[in-house]
Amino acid sequence: MRLVAVCALVVLLTAAGSAQQTVPRGRGGVPVAPNGIPAVPLPDKPLEFPTAEGQKIRVVVVARGMSSPWSMVWLPDGDMLITQRTGQLRRLRKGVLDPTPVAGVPEVVAGGLGGLMEITLHPQFATNQFVYLSYPKPIGAAPAPAPPAPGGGGAGRGPVQQTALAVARARWNGTALTDVKDTFVAQTGVGGPARMVFGRDGKLYVTTGGVNSGAQDPSSHAGKVLRLNDDGSVPQDNPFVKHAGYAPEVYTLGHRSSLGLGVHPGTGEIWQHENGPNGGDEINILKTGGNYGWPIVSYGRTYPGPWQAPKLSHDNFEQPIVFWVPSIAASGIAFYTGNKLPKWKGDVFVGALRVGEIPGTGHLQRILFNEQMEELRRESLLTEMRQRIRDVRQGPDELIYVLTDSPKDGALLRIEPAP
Amino acid sequence: MRLVAVCALVVLLTAAGSAQQTVPRGRGGVPVAPNGIPAVPLPDKPLEFPTAEGQKIRVVVVARGMSSPWSMVWLPDGDMLITQRTGQLRRLRKGVLDPTPVAGVPEVVAGGLGGLMEITLHPQFATNQFVYLSYPKPIGAAPAPAPPAPGGGGAGRGPVQQTALAVARARWNGTALTDVKDTFVAQTGVGGPARMVFGRDGKLYVTTGGVNSGAQDPSSHAGKVLRLNDDGSVPQDNPFVKHAGYAPEVYTLGHRSSLGLGVHPGTGEIWQHENGPNGGDEINILKTGGNYGWPIVSYGRTYPGPWQAPKLSHDNFEQPIVFWVPSIAASGIAFYTGNKLPKWKGDVFVGALRVGEIPGTGHLQRILFNEQMEELRRESLLTEMRQRIRDVRQGPDELIYVLTDSPKDGALLRIEPAP
Repeated sequence: MRLVAVCALVVLLTAAGSAQQTVPRGRGGVPVAPNGIPAVPLPDKPLEFPTAEGQKIRVVVVARGMSSPWSMVWLPDGDMLITQRTGQLRRLRKGVLDPTPVAGVPEVVAGGLGGLMEITLHPQFATNQFVYLSYPKPIGAAPAPAPPAPGGGGAGRGPVQQTALAVARARWNGTALTDVKDTFVAQTGVGGPARMVFGRDGKLYVTTGGVNSGAQDPSSHAGKVLRLNDDGSVPQDNPFVKHAGYAPEVYTLGHRSSLGLGVHPGTGEIWQHENGPNGGDEINILKTGGNYGWPIVSYGRTYPGPWQAPKLSHDNFEQPIVFWVPSIAASGIAFYTGNKLPKWKGDVFVGALRVGEIPGTGHLQRILFNEQMEELRRESLLTEMRQRIRDVRQGPDELIYVLTDSPKDGALLRIEPAP
Repeated sequence: MRLVAVCALVVLLTAAGSAQQTVPRGRGGVPVAPNGIPAVPLPDKPLEFPTAEGQKIRVVVVARGMSSPWSMVWLPDGDMLITQRTGQLRRLRKGVLDPTPVAGVPEVVAGGLGGLMEITLHPQFATNQFVYLSYPKPIGAAPAPAPPAPGGGGAGRGPVQQTALAVARARWNGTALTDVKDTFVAQTGVGGPARMVFGRDGKLYVTTGGVNSGAQDPSSHAGKVLRLNDDGSVPQDNPFVKHAGYAPEVYTLGHRSSLGLGVHPGTGEIWQHENGPNGGDEINILKTGGNYGWPIVSYGRTYPGPWQAPKLSHDNFEQPIVFWVPSIAASGIAFYTGNKLPKWKGDVFVGALRVGEIPGTGHLQRILFNEQMEELRRESLLTEMRQRIRDVRQGPDELIYVLTDSPKDGALLRIEPAP
């Protein structure tokens, strides 16, 4: 009887699977992104939305038409520099996007999820004009793989471009980048998203991807947060600098895919967030030398369904302060300290790419904490716009800015109080 | 330096708190529901929405104006009976809501989150016309509390109405309930949401609330799933029927607030879902005698911020197959087996009340599983309608029906393929 019931289910699921062309499932396969659903277009006029505390907001499209914008920074004169993952740096000059990219960007290997990523300014930018960029640097070609076996089909592939995550430092001369120099180049093959932030200690913190391997290998740069001097050298007070078998740049271990990194304005602590696979996105407050557990522990499932870890816990590893099940594909983090949106003061904002559902169902999350940095609740914002949010920052005007992820029409949005 | 930074944070949060009248926070307090945001009104015309696999759906308001509708069932002639939490049973007769409630409903103590809740039919309804209802039954007044101390302010309260969760069985005579009889009355004080479903074994499974206490007490009916014969007596094959110290009706233990209960159409297993406090909603597949851990384990936080459990795991307890962080306030469950919405065949649907954000930001969640009942992904549906979803069912017409929760304008919605 029981067997009959299970068989009936299998038949049911098989029938369902055969009816679904776009999302294979019921076969233990990895679900693929759906398609054919039109995204919600960017609005021509500002949009207004209610929010949970009765604070009505207005969302303005400041600039659009960018190619996969990834990170943004304000210059002291109020102009902005915005990276495009495809390898260009754009300038917003007096509120208008300059059609000509900024000159001087190093050669970037853009592909997959990588490319020109973070941009950040040196804490003494006013005096030294140093700008930092993270990107996958071409390292030369690996030997071509063996030709396909006879009858295997398909043309032989050429040599594979090898890359390594690099941190470039350049000088901003007012119109272009000059004196570009790679201050740090990770081990060949290390990649993934690389957010960067300067801590209050003047050190540069850099995330590296650890989806596939290396996150628990202390000698690998993969799946870590690295801590560097502003010239790319190793700080002698790094936690593992005297530990045999550790890469000396390692600050924290056990990260998967870190798309958010910021300094808490109250405590100075480094907040990092990373994406789990099928559930298990998390925010961590970094502790020197801490291990955050990937891929040994997680609160998420793998894409084909089984849990990532046999035990759903963070036993023996640092515990996130926030996690998401299901995933939101978190990208970007901002701590709001302004007065223009007073109900949000003290709150944390995280962008969401939210892949795997309708294309462009990303949104912006607001997270409220109590004094002990314990989460009270979350609010989903901009859901109606259905834009993938790549980055979120507070501007010098005390308004909130987000970048939307789109290969051809990425936009800079400004969130302000509705009049 | 560090102390200064922390102090600055406290000042920042205190300032933020003082600016927020509607949502106390930053004080370790429990956040209260926001208000002042207009809900999205029910549409006059059918709405159409895209969904993730390119299956466009149309949502039709079948009936509205109900008072907190809670559960629904179809009679063999296609008419529907819908409970209102406020204590009435409504009939949808040939697609039109009868303005006169059905006669014969027992006296219900409606208040807080309780009232007339589940309605379900006996598996042999066609021959015996038995209808089952769950509700808090008045048990008589408890002694009045001591009068307030002199100068304590406030008027003395009268006697407190005591209740107990009851399961009533009645006969449907074609227009009203007759021969109403309480087949089971739980221990006095046991309440909470009480979903009910008949298993393939012909037994009636009943959930009870365990938010505050009793969920781990085997002698208490609170925080359990109970298993009863169709006449309310105890099945002699219940797991603890011969265990000293156990209430013999107990089927599973350690539940918090169960708002969903259903029989999987493939396996016959009982699927139950319950709400965590601040995160930690979960779906469980019930195992005879299983303990699901509340309040010892959870993946959620308490409302004021601290984690519910010192360890975020389900060590030593049954592990949910799905959980949500943050909470969606899950209510209702349906397994779609129809052909009218072919891309959804084999999927699980869960309603979401989603309290704590903008009022009425509830939605419907669709969850896809692989053959091993491992989750592949979730899709949020009807988000734009911003309705709190109380229940979801598949109709005999192979379409999906949901009830929206509203004190005066609760609605029955039908989801069908867009033409």
